[in-house]
Amino acid sequence: MLELYHAGLTTCSKKARLCLAEKGLDYVSHYMKLRDFEHHRPEYLALNPNGVVPTLLHDGQVIIESTFINEYLDEVFPDPPLKPTDPAGRARMRGWGKMADEYGLAAVRIPTWTRTKTDSIGALRDAGELDAVIARIPLQDHRDKYRQISEEGFSEKEFADAYAKMDFVYARAEEALADGPWLVGEQFTLADINLLPFIDQFGKYRPELLDPANHPRTADWHGRAMARPAVIKTYSPSDEAPGRPPQSASAA
Amino acid sequence: MLELYHAGLTTCSKKARLCLAEKGLDYVSHYMKLRDFEHHRPEYLALNPNGVVPTLLHDGQVIIESTFINEYLDEVFPDPPLKPTDPAGRARMRGWGKMADEYGLAAVRIPTWTRTKTDSIGALRDAGELDAVIARIPLQDHRDKYRQISEEGFSEKEFADAYAKMDFVYARAEEALADGPWLVGEQFTLADINLLPFIDQFGKYRPELLDPANHPRTADWHGRAMARPAVIKTYSPSDEAPGRPPQSASAA
Repeated sequence: MLELYHAGLTTCSKKARLCLAEKGLDYVSHYMKLRDFEHHRPEYLALNPNGVVPTLLHDGQVIIESTFINEYLDEVFPDPPLKPTDPAGRARMRGWGKMADEYGLAAVRIPTWTRTKTDSIGALRDAGELDAVIARIPLQDHRDKYRQISEEGFSEKEFADAYAKMDFVYARAEEALADGPWLVGEQFTLADINLLPFIDQFGKYRPELLDPANHPRTADWHGRAMARPAVIKTYSPSDEAPGRPPQSASAA
Repeated sequence: MLELYHAGLTTCSKKARLCLAEKGLDYVSHYMKLRDFEHHRPEYLALNPNGVVPTLLHDGQVIIESTFINEYLDEVFPDPPLKPTDPAGRARMRGWGKMADEYGLAAVRIPTWTRTKTDSIGALRDAGELDAVIARIPLQDHRDKYRQISEEGFSEKEFADAYAKMDFVYARAEEALADGPWLVGEQFTLADINLLPFIDQFGKYRPELLDPANHPRTADWHGRAMARPAVIKTYSPSDEAPGRPPQSASAA
């Protein structure tokens, strides 16, 4: 049996949910309310010591980190295959997973956490509960960011760095897609699944990035990816994945 | 034929060189002089657009990123196997690769770049050549760090963050080794290969970390790893891997 702890329409949860959907796998869905800090509660930390979503349970095994959850799913449920058959293609695919983690996630957090966490963290601060909540967060970088949101917010430099990372991800995707139609060539792979939430979300914050005049191949790739039935299902609000706050970065 | 572009005894080059040594693979060695910024020259950027080492060439294929080079090597040359046979073990192994990249490398750069690059970057600045050298660096984070080294150096906060990351890596290794003897259990894997240069280098900067009184399992693991013939060969200065500047973090 498969169980997924996830936060619905957030970027890393969409990665794992899309991989499951592309493979047509059924799973027990555990929706975590990030606004209530459910991912920092002891019972969840016992599964995922980093206190982040998603986490996959499969036959008693706990798998964490969405990029590795997806590679695990492809190894255990190889139909349809979402990894290239050649080792060099798999190395390139893994490079996109790293790009999603180190550039995509790092960049999206700055506007997204500002937009989605400012109110709830402010309420905690006003209630005198913030210190206790922050003390339960396992990752120092996350503790620091919660603290920042409760005080001055992210700096102009942090927003500028995040926007530069968005530009970099788009530039690299545009280059790679010269050998498309997908990021690693002919085959739709985990590279596409893992990068899509970031390309999509960056395009919501900065529509000029998705303008075909600026990134013609990436805009085309995004359109083709978003039209896949599994993507439509995974990216749409549902009981499993409730809608999120409005898509504006203007909270900055 | 295998060819490796690398920088000898630097952390990420040691990862790939150790994997090759554990497998007993011969390769053509191309030593890159980082002090002369050879990794930012156009002919190298044509192979590795990030301008970082190492890069593997194999039968016309270019493989970048040491973590993925090692997984590639294990897939193409599976003897001896350096990946767990079960998918959940491989997911954990990949988690250590991510730990090495996102915590290990991020932390080691602060003291190491201060120690190894301050003089050469200062000389470039004094010669009026720094702007041109920085302009050739593909990764913005690296451009920013070169600029910082040429000016005020890394901040106290950046050193504190790096030291906190070192603590985190040691704490997680210590926990995992309760189920040892290696990071993913019974088998010596790419997890051990990929984390070793960071545990080892952090221990040089901060000997208390490797004190068995503080991290008994990690100190034992480090001792066992460093005694492996392939590690002795890979980590020792040689024609392929010239010695580096003295191991002090006091340049901070």
